[in-house]
Amino acid sequence: MRRTSMYLIFTIFLSLAAGAQTQTSVRHIQEGDRPIATGVWAGDTLYLSGQLASPVTPADTTKGTAAIYGDTEAQTMSTLTKIQAALKSEGLGMSDVVMMHVYMAGDPAKDGQLDFPGMMAAYTRFFGTKEQPNKPARSAMEVAALAAPWALVEIEVIAVKGSRKPAR
Amino acid sequence: MRRTSMYLIFTIFLSLAAGAQTQTSVRHIQEGDRPIATGVWAGDTLYLSGQLASPVTPADTTKGTAAIYGDTEAQTMSTLTKIQAALKSEGLGMSDVVMMHVYMAGDPAKDGQLDFPGMMAAYTRFFGTKEQPNKPARSAMEVAALAAPWALVEIEVIAVKGSRKPAR
Amino acid sequence: MRRTSMYLIFTIFLSLAAGAQTQTSVRHIQEGDRPIATGVWAGDTLYLSGQLASPVTPADTTKGTAAIYGDTEAQTMSTLTKIQAALKSEGLGMSDVVMMHVYMAGDPAKDGQLDFPGMMAAYTRFFGTKEQPNKPARSAMEVAALAAPWALVEIEVIAVKGSRKPAR
Repeated sequence: MRRTSMYLIFTIFLSLAAGAQTQTSVRHIQEGDRPIATGVWAGDTLYLSGQLASPVTPADTTKGTAAIYGDTEAQTMSTLTKIQAALKSEGLGMSDVVMMHVYMAGDPAKDGQLDFPGMMAAYTRFFGTKEQPNKPARSAMEVAALAAPWALVEIEVIAVKGSRKPAR
Repeated sequence: MRRTSMYLIFTIFLSLAAGAQTQTSVRHIQEGDRPIATGVWAGDTLYLSGQLASPVTPADTTKGTAAIYGDTEAQTMSTLTKIQAALKSEGLGMSDVVMMHVYMAGDPAKDGQLDFPGMMAAYTRFFGTKEQPNKPARSAMEVAALAAPWALVEIEVIAVKGSRKPAR
Repeated sequence: MRRTSMYLIFTIFLSLAAGAQTQTSVRHIQEGDRPIATGVWAGDTLYLSGQLASPVTPADTTKGTAAIYGDTEAQTMSTLTKIQAALKSEGLGMSDVVMMHVYMAGDPAKDGQLDFPGMMAAYTRFFGTKEQPNKPARSAMEVAALAAPWALVEIEVIAVKGSRKPAR
């Protein structure tokens, strides 16, 4: 009897010790030859790469016209829609975003001025709504330039798979 | 006897398996109608939104005078004091800051030059002191513009509730 | 018999409860009088401070010549080599980088233009190679200025000690 008990207690502690040493599971989401990951999972935390907008109107090589990306609001809508899709494919949603960086560039069509209200108009359709009340922690700023000359906004998020407690 | 032991071992493993799947607890700290969270907890990690300074002298509508925010040093003092208060209300302190981003803008009162020493003068009163020797990992840079036209510095921190080992 | 079993089950739950409350271990890696940490460990996550390049040719006080830091590609090579060494001294490698921020400045020697291809030429020697196929999530942008006047690139990484699943 005592032996069994001792053995069990020993097993428990061994198991717990092993549990305490459980390594964080890391998974890189890489697509083809792209030089960066779309995102990387580290435990319950998903780091997504900064996203730029997709064109509103793609380039037309037969007509020789360039792609049209739209203004800051249009690009923010496109960027957040891409982020929403990227999160969805990993089983997450906008309510799981915990941290966001918004990097903006001045809009040449507006004398190079930053269009902060345009960014906010799109942002508030995804965060703090009746359907999706969660808002992320965020920093937003104007940088000198983004990775593409046409880009007016780049958004990067950290999302966490977890049990959400009601926001207070 | 054997049955009980088997049952116990089974219980242990079930419990451990459940423990391994414990979800990260996420909590959004949201204040009123602000479009972003003050901060978001994800497990032991607290992501705080980028903070700007409070005015040194508030606007006076009767006199028609604008708020005065001070230079880079004054704004950094104000910003770090706000961060300290935000951390305190979540049971944390400056010693718990693990990562910091300092986004600065050139000071128009100094020919648009970046006042890095001014930022450091305030920073070093909070980090690496005798009373609070812990220093965060940090990136600091000058951006094109911050979210408010008067803002010379925005500071964003990640803090972690944990057991601190002595810095080496 | 029953008592022992009860006692054991009680022990298990107590142990598990204790395990669930295990605090995240935080460790600041601080070197001498530097005002910021080289990096900070929070559980399995290592936050490294933004790194600038080391000089290709150090300053020569006898000749009165300034240090030479090279172009964007040379500075990126230097910066990533420093990051690799910092990770190695903590038991990690480039494959453990989960998130990267690349802050760049225009190169005065190139009419102030951003040298994105120069940064990429160095980056791709460390990430997405046959020997090291893992690529981080990343945001890259041009800022107004970095912490040193000669600096063309600052790189900041978050690395995670974990069990890597194959990238997909």
